[in-house]
Parts: sequence; structure tokens; C-alpha cells
Amino acid sequence: MNTFEQQLQNYAELAVKVGVNIQPNQYLFISASTDVRDFVRIIVEKAYAAGARQVFVDWSDDVVSRIRYEQAPADSFSEFPSWKIAEREQLAEKGAAFMSIVSQSPDLFKNVEASRIRDAQKASGQALDRYRQMMQADKFSWTVIAAPSADWASLVFPELPVSEQVPALWNAILKAVRANTANPVEEWKLHDQTLHEKVDYLNSKHYHKLHYTAPGTDLTIELPELHTWCGAGSVNADGATFMANMPTEEVFTAPLKTGVNGVVSSTKPLSYGGTIIDDFKITFKDGQITDITAGQGQDVLENMIQADEGAKYLGEVALVPHESPISASGLLFYNTLFDENASNHLAIGSAYAFNLDGGKEMDRKELEQNGLNQSITHVDFMIGSGEMDIDGILADGTKEPVFRNGSWAF
Amino acid sequence: MNTFEQQLQNYAELAVKVGVNIQPNQYLFISASTDVRDFVRIIVEKAYAAGARQVFVDWSDDVVSRIRYEQAPADSFSEFPSWKIAEREQLAEKGAAFMSIVSQSPDLFKNVEASRIRDAQKASGQALDRYRQMMQADKFSWTVIAAPSADWASLVFPELPVSEQVPALWNAILKAVRANTANPVEEWKLHDQTLHEKVDYLNSKHYHKLHYTAPGTDLTIELPELHTWCGAGSVNADGATFMANMPTEEVFTAPLKTGVNGVVSSTKPLSYGGTIIDDFKITFKDGQITDITAGQGQDVLENMIQADEGAKYLGEVALVPHESPISASGLLFYNTLFDENASNHLAIGSAYAFNLDGGKEMDRKELEQNGLNQSITHVDFMIGSGEMDIDGILADGTKEPVFRNGSWAF
Repeated sequence: MNTFEQQLQNYAELAVKVGVNIQPNQYLFISASTDVRDFVRIIVEKAYAAGARQVFVDWSDDVVSRIRYEQAPADSFSEFPSWKIAEREQLAEKGAAFMSIVSQSPDLFKNVEASRIRDAQKASGQALDRYRQMMQADKFSWTVIAAPSADWASLVFPELPVSEQVPALWNAILKAVRANTANPVEEWKLHDQTLHEKVDYLNSKHYHKLHYTAPGTDLTIELPELHTWCGAGSVNADGATFMANMPTEEVFTAPLKTGVNGVVSSTKPLSYGGTIIDDFKITFKDGQITDITAGQGQDVLENMIQADEGAKYLGEVALVPHESPISASGLLFYNTLFDENASNHLAIGSAYAFNLDGGKEMDRKELEQNGLNQSITHVDFMIGSGEMDIDGILADGTKEPVFRNGSWAF
Repeated sequence: MNTFEQQLQNYAELAVKVGVNIQPNQYLFISASTDVRDFVRIIVEKAYAAGARQVFVDWSDDVVSRIRYEQAPADSFSEFPSWKIAEREQLAEKGAAFMSIVSQSPDLFKNVEASRIRDAQKASGQALDRYRQMMQADKFSWTVIAAPSADWASLVFPELPVSEQVPALWNAILKAVRANTANPVEEWKLHDQTLHEKVDYLNSKHYHKLHYTAPGTDLTIELPELHTWCGAGSVNADGATFMANMPTEEVFTAPLKTGVNGVVSSTKPLSYGGTIIDDFKITFKDGQITDITAGQGQDVLENMIQADEGAKYLGEVALVPHESPISASGLLFYNTLFDENASNHLAIGSAYAFNLDGGKEMDRKELEQNGLNQSITHVDFMIGSGEMDIDGILADGTKEPVFRNGSWAF
């Protein structure tokens, strides 16, 4: 076991070398909160050491954000600054890499009116539409990693003394991203191979539909004719590999937009826009959401699916065994980056172009014609449990077990 | 005497109400370091309470900046991102207010190659040319204030234990900006009046030239026919008042670009681009710098005056009595915002349009025709001391005392 300091160095190295896989003379854009300043500095140092041309840090401050959400005029939330669009699009066109470090408290905006969150999410979703399309077609390298803020850590470890909460969350994160191993970069190579074996199996099967059953869930998802499963490492437009999420334990593909029928129940709380949504059930008919009920945050969930037409359809189907390392930790992170990698999940909203064979080269119309959903939003939610079975249904109607009791059945 | 917390609140209130004088539904753009996060949060809270529409905080991080200056490729320093130009220009056009909070260590970049600092200053100077022109014509409200970083405080109070340095610098700043008084906003009104009495006297005299004498200094500065003295409060294009510097103890005008002759010696160190320049002497002939010598930082000074043609001429003449409150504190701040308000000073580079009668409405060519210098740079440097005499010379050659032994002579 390495020291904490060494593990932090390992993690920063992983983020730079495996996450965005920075290339000589490349720009790097980092989105991070002032809460994780010390960790950002380590990453910046490693990025320049790896040859970065310039590292732009787009700092946010959670307290400044919350003051805005609580006090600014209501009509200001529909605005999104044009220079922030230009910043991302111009950097993307220059082949920059993008790193997001999530640290925000899952319920930062818990007392904020839902309409403000809806307007802000919609405004940024529409403004960054082109940037997101490029991202979802793997045009550039991007990665999402995490670091603890005090508020987030207090939610994950409420039973610990305050002084031990952040260190405990650091340890959980460092373990989840394999930064506690002797050779983390090598570990990630092996992990990448393991996930690709699952990907290859599922692609060889080419299931027509998946059928999910679990308490509160009976859902059939049809897959597009050209669907392709992905997992772990991706390849950008310049041919460089990158890891879009760290950790990542999932293999995933796109659903057929109009091919989702039945009902699905959430199995973990979902932090969305700084509020927590929990105990929810969603009903689908021909792909479209026809009913939702939530034990907590129903107004936020209702506002979320009204972002645009595509926000009422699914864009991602992801498989994660219930005994994944993150799930085995027994922790509820209240953060999708971790919780989605401990559980089968789906995403409301836009689908990834790379989940269609040839999709990276298709325009928006072709992607739609081939069954992919488009939206300004993309929100993962967790549905997996130890009681979930999934059958793969071949084109001829044959059923094969894919998951049994929450784990791979093959 | 108020408590420290109350004084911080006073200072934030002054910055918002007197500094930028925020108006309902106005945007506010704050440039600040992560080192002063807590103080920024107080200002943001007060800005929204005063009706701000949205507060954009442009965070910088001194360590991230230093890593870049030390490690990034040399040719990257000539670049300036176009979206950062758009950000300022678009906000300025929307009538936003701009607040800079200086906190950077005066020698943050002490080991960085001078050419990197020169290239970066030149790139930002050229890129923000239009923004700076708008600023120097009072098109929008802007203010420069200060808050301590640990590194800056250690330079000002090297004799104190580390734990007392930041509090000591806070106290010095809070005193300098009158935040320690019972009614700071009212104090600033009185201060504004006092400075305007000096302004009115000098404008009524309409001196043709100023003649400076002090040890190492014998300098004559001709003033433009249309010159006008200013001090303390300004008025923006919408008619709202603002205070461009807090503290401010100076009254100032523009020199005639080609009317400066003789030699002048610095009396305080100058922090420029994160390096310290000290013990320097500058010789002028018909406005142009013909010789410079510096005991420290000569290479940085030489690079500075090569930014463009205007960087070899003066753009500001400012008078501050040697017994000003900041000077009386006996502290050397190594920060121009304070040190310039403890000392007569001049500025190399561009002149303010508002220092010409009718100048705010003149275009660049008219400003030049009326004797104003233009440049991408504007750097104040301190020349005042208790041994400085200044004569005002009327158009008919009559001499009148303006300063004697470093203090007002009228």
C-alpha cells in the first residue's frame, strides 16, 4: 500500500496519462471547484510535464454558485454567456483535451427553486449543443474524475467525525480508480482488456432486445440494428486513446429510441443539478416516458424530462455487475460517476454517436434515422440490484441469460 | 474600532457600493485569486444583495500560473485566447462593472525568464486593447482593490511570525481603505471632496509645465493644452459614479507625450509581472526614454519599454503628498495600488482619455493629436519622497510652488 501522497500522485498521473492521455503541445481544459485546488495543482504540474501547451483551469466555487442560485433574478437563469461557448468550441477545434473534476455536494442546491435549475440546465444544454455533439462522437479526448469536497464527504460518511470525512472519501475514490495499486497505469490496461472481453461477447451476440426483470422493474429495450457495445477506453479523432470516466466498470450501448416499453424502478438516489431525486419509477411506451413517480425530488425530475423532446427518451443502456469493486465497497456515493459504476443503469437524453457502427461519421439526421435519441440532456440513473435478471433476445426470438441475480450470466 | 469581521464586511460593501457602485440588474466581473476566496464570497453576496444580475468570477491560481510560466513551451506565451477578449468586450458592451482584487505575491515570477513575461504582457496588452480603451475613457465602472495572499504578506511583514503576517496585511489594507471607520461610505464621500479641492485648484491654474527636483531627479513635464486633473471618483458612460482605485490618494493628469525632458529616479521598488524592479533611473528626451539603469530587474524594465512605441513615453503624472495616510503607515507594500498612493508617481505607457477636456468623446487619432500617449501598457512607478520639490510653470514662464519637501505647497 502506498502512502496517501503517493496515491494522489498516482491518481493525477492516471488522469493525465490514461484519462485524457495528454499529447505534446496539446491544450488541456480543466473544470474544477476551488475546493479541490491542491489536487488540481498536482494535475497541472503533471500535464505540463507530459508536454501540455497550456492548461486552462475553469474554476468554479460552490458557495458563489449557491449564492447566485438563491439570490440572482429569476429570469437570468435562461442566459448562457456566448464566450463560454466559444471557449469550449474553439479549444475542441484545436484538439484540446477536457477534464472535469467533480466534487460538488450532491445537494448543493437543495433549497433552490426547481425552475431555476431547469432553466440553467436547459440554457447550458442548448448553448453547448455543438460541443456536446463533438464529445459524443469522440472528436476530442475527455475524462470525468472526482475529488472530495467537505460537503460531499459529509453526505457519504455522516457517521464519521468531520475531520475524518474527507480523508475517508479520498481513500474510497483512490481505491475505486486503482490509484492504491503498485502500478496503476498497468492495472488500467488489464481492466480495459477485461471490459473489452464483455464488449466483444455482446457485440458477437448482436441481441435484438434486452428484457429486464427485478422488483418494480419489467422493461424491454430494443437495440438499433447498427448498435455497438463499448466500454473503458475510447479513441479520439486524432487516433489517441482516452478514458472518458475514471472509475469505469460499465459496458454500454444505445437503445432504439422508440423501442423501450415497460416500467423501471430506481435503486439508488440520483444527484441532479445539486438536488437529490430518490425512489422513482418511470414508465415507457414506444420509447417515450409516459409516467413518473418519485419519493423525493419529483418536481426536479419532471422539470428534467421537459428540457426538450429527447429528454423523454433513453440514450444509454449500461451493464455493471452488482459485485463490481465499487458496489462491493458498500458505499453510496450520491455521485453518478461512482454509483453508476456500481449498478446497471440507463440514461435519459442523448445517445453517443460511437454506439452506432459508423456513427462517428454520421450527421445528426443519419443518427436519428438509425434510431439514436438526441437531446440537450444526458442523465444516468441507477436501476441495478442483486435481484436483477436480464435476458438477451435474438432476432429470431431466442432468449439467452445476460444477467442473473445482478451478475454476468456468461 | 470595529471587529475584523465587521471591517471585512465594510470593505466588501465599499467595493460594491463605492468601488463599482453596482446598479440593479448589472453584471459584475470579478478577477481574483483562489487565495482570497473567502473575501470574494462576501463581495458576491453583497453584489447580489445590491441587485446584480450575475456575478462572473474569473478565478486565477498563483501556483497554477507559476507552473505555467516555468514549464510551458516558450512560444505559447505570445498567445492570448480570443474568448477571453470576447468575455470582457461583450460584458463591457452590456454595461457590466469590473472589479480586480489584487493579491498576487510581488515576486511570484522571480525565477521566470524575462522574455516569457514580456511576451505574455504584450499578448494580453494587444488582445485587450479595445477593452482598455473603453476603460480609459470611463465607458464602464471599474475598480481595483486588494486582499492579502500569504506570500505577499510575508514580503511586507518578514519580521512577524508567519501566522501573524496575513492578519497584519489585512489590518494595513483595511486601514488604508478606511474600512476601520464607523461609517466608511460617508468617509469616502468626504475623502472624495478633499481630493476634488486639489483637482479644482490645479485645473484653475492650468500649468503649462511641472518641474520636479529631488536627489537623482531633475525632470520637466509639459502638459497638453487640454489637460485636466482628476482624482477619486469617476463617472461612467451611463452617468453612474465609481472609484477606480481603493485606496486612492492621488490627483493626476496626462503629460504631453513629447514634452518630457530630464532624469527621474525611483524611490520605491516596483512589482511588475511578478518580478521586482528597484533602484532605477530613467532619462527622457522630448518625451522618449533614452536611457534606463536599474539596480534590480534591469532586463524586465528593458523588456517592458519595448512592448510598443508608446511604452517609451509617459501616460500619467500623479501627485500624492509624502505624508499621505498610506505613506504615514511607513509600510512598503511592494504593490503599486498602495505604494503609488504613498508617493508622487508617473506611469509609462498609455494615458487616460478623460485626462483631456472632451477626451472621452475623442477617437484615438484625436487623442494623439492633442498630445496623449497610446500604448498597450500602463505601468505606474514611484518617484516621490520627503525631499521632492515641484514647481508649476505658467504659460508666461512664471514659477509657482506646487510641492515643497514632498508636500502640497498651496
